Amino acid sequence: MVDRRLASLIRAKSPADLNEACRYVLSAGGKRVRSTLLILSCEAVGGRAVQALEAGAAIEVMHNFTLVHDDIMDNAPSRRGRRTVHIRWNLNTALLVGDVMVGLAYKTLLDTKGDKIREIIDLFSAGLIGVCQGQSLDLAYERRPDVTIPEYFLMIEKKTGLMISMATHLGAVIGDGSASQIEALRLYGRYIGRAFQLRDDLLDVVATRKDFGKSIGGDIVEGKKTFLLLLAAERAKGGDRKVILGLMRRHELTAHPVSATERRKLIMAVTAIYRRYGIIEETREQIRKNTRKAAASLAVLPRVRATGMLQWFSEALMNRIS
Amino acid sequence: MVDRRLASLIRAKSPADLNEACRYVLSAGGKRVRSTLLILSCEAVGGRAVQALEAGAAIEVMHNFTLVHDDIMDNAPSRRGRRTVHIRWNLNTALLVGDVMVGLAYKTLLDTKGDKIREIIDLFSAGLIGVCQGQSLDLAYERRPDVTIPEYFLMIEKKTGLMISMATHLGAVIGDGSASQIEALRLYGRYIGRAFQLRDDLLDVVATRKDFGKSIGGDIVEGKKTFLLLLAAERAKGGDRKVILGLMRRHELTAHPVSATERRKLIMAVTAIYRRYGIIEETREQIRKNTRKAAASLAVLPRVRATGMLQWFSEALMNRIS
Repeated sequence: MVDRRLASLIRAKSPADLNEACRYVLSAGGKRVRSTLLILSCEAVGGRAVQALEAGAAIEVMHNFTLVHDDIMDNAPSRRGRRTVHIRWNLNTALLVGDVMVGLAYKTLLDTKGDKIREIIDLFSAGLIGVCQGQSLDLAYERRPDVTIPEYFLMIEKKTGLMISMATHLGAVIGDGSASQIEALRLYGRYIGRAFQLRDDLLDVVATRKDFGKSIGGDIVEGKKTFLLLLAAERAKGGDRKVILGLMRRHELTAHPVSATERRKLIMAVTAIYRRYGIIEETREQIRKNTRKAAASLAVLPRVRATGMLQWFSEALMNRIS
Repeated sequence: MVDRRLASLIRAKSPADLNEACRYVLSAGGKRVRSTLLILSCEAVGGRAVQALEAGAAIEVMHNFTLVHDDIMDNAPSRRGRRTVHIRWNLNTALLVGDVMVGLAYKTLLDTKGDKIREIIDLFSAGLIGVCQGQSLDLAYERRPDVTIPEYFLMIEKKTGLMISMATHLGAVIGDGSASQIEALRLYGRYIGRAFQLRDDLLDVVATRKDFGKSIGGDIVEGKKTFLLLLAAERAKGGDRKVILGLMRRHELTAHPVSATERRKLIMAVTAIYRRYGIIEETREQIRKNTRKAAASLAVLPRVRATGMLQWFSEALMNRIS
């Protein structure tokens, strides 16, 4: 339903570049996690899926806007197996495609019926602001060798978490849930969002390439400040510590490309350190803790099918990581 | 009042770069034309200025977002005598500053009281979408040597006009104007917006440097597809035509910088062509026509002070151009 709604969003022909690139982005697929969580949250409090469809499409448009602009900032060449917008078109088009998608997201959201539109728009705007703040922190952390774990959680809370908790929160509001149901679903989204990001960090290290859809160890090679790296910076000693701290400074030191052999050696060395200090097990434990909290948040909800699916979703996050 | 509201918008400290750059943009001044027109339109239909204050601030934030992203696309080094965000900070910060300002604009707009919030958000979103489409057309025109005058009007209608007509339209809605009053003010804004852009095109040729705040002839040197250039492409003959058509292709031909002497010679030659074919007089006539139409649209409004100021504003647009 969401995909169909997304496909129908852009009908105009002119301006050709802008519309073509928008359709390209919105038709790239993806798991539609946010819209699914939004719609299930609406149903879990007794609403109907169709009430939440516009908001579901809107959150996917918003999410995809962040991807287009993030890809510019990260200079990413591809996403979901296709060239990114700034590569396939150019920077200016990618910039405008992102901008116009924000307008499109609001316009779609506004088709949501009912008398809670102020609250809905307010949540959505807070999400937009937060996601930009999260991305800004992420970029700032790249240049800082001394990022802490609390800072990491603050950043992912905004950059990844907010869009997920906004999804469940919005769904509960649209489905006309009670205050305690809305709060429960907001918290569910918050824990799921955290687990989601931790899992992403972990999969960079433990996934098989086929599973993951992108090459393994990318975060390590980039010196990305993942939960694993920051925890290793706290725990590692001696020579291991030197390797990890070198990685924390990587962004400032290495502008030059790394050979395939160096790359493989670095990934193996860092993975070995992660294993030595229990980093991988601790990350798994964090994911478990957050998915357990997410599942526990659902206790106040009626035991309907949608609630069961949200329960299942939190458990599914544990797949492939243990 | 608007400046004070804008100054109070960003209170958070973190993320430092993002907030500092936002404050930098919002404190740069500017004539606040859009918010002034919005508030006057509210008053003209019997509303109070204070009702329209949030929307006024919101439209300035939205306008400034477009400036930050446009400056990236045009690779502009300065604006209002200060370095642009992407120069003073960097591309990524400028990108994010623009993005977060959109969220901020909606959040501010949402503080508008009353039961018309859906209509208000809808107008605002249509404005955002339109302004992106207009900018996209503008960029596409740069690469095309055969842009026509109707295409030019379509582009400026979206790129510049929409934000102005949205201002007057929003003001009339917030002030609870009747359907005919709202339509009158929307049209007023539309004509004013058109006159505004034509005047900008004209001032590039006829203003004195002190008046204009940027160097004269910049559009000519860039081969920018202004109303004057497109009209000259229709009218000029022989050698003059060659010069003009060369300018229409300028964007593709000249990547190299132009010396000060070449620059001055080109500006003088093109200005002479503009004079020879009555281009300047015709542009003035177009501005007059649109300001007359704008003034005429005000006829259905009560003759209150705000209506008088809107009347004065349309006349003031004629200053310095004749």
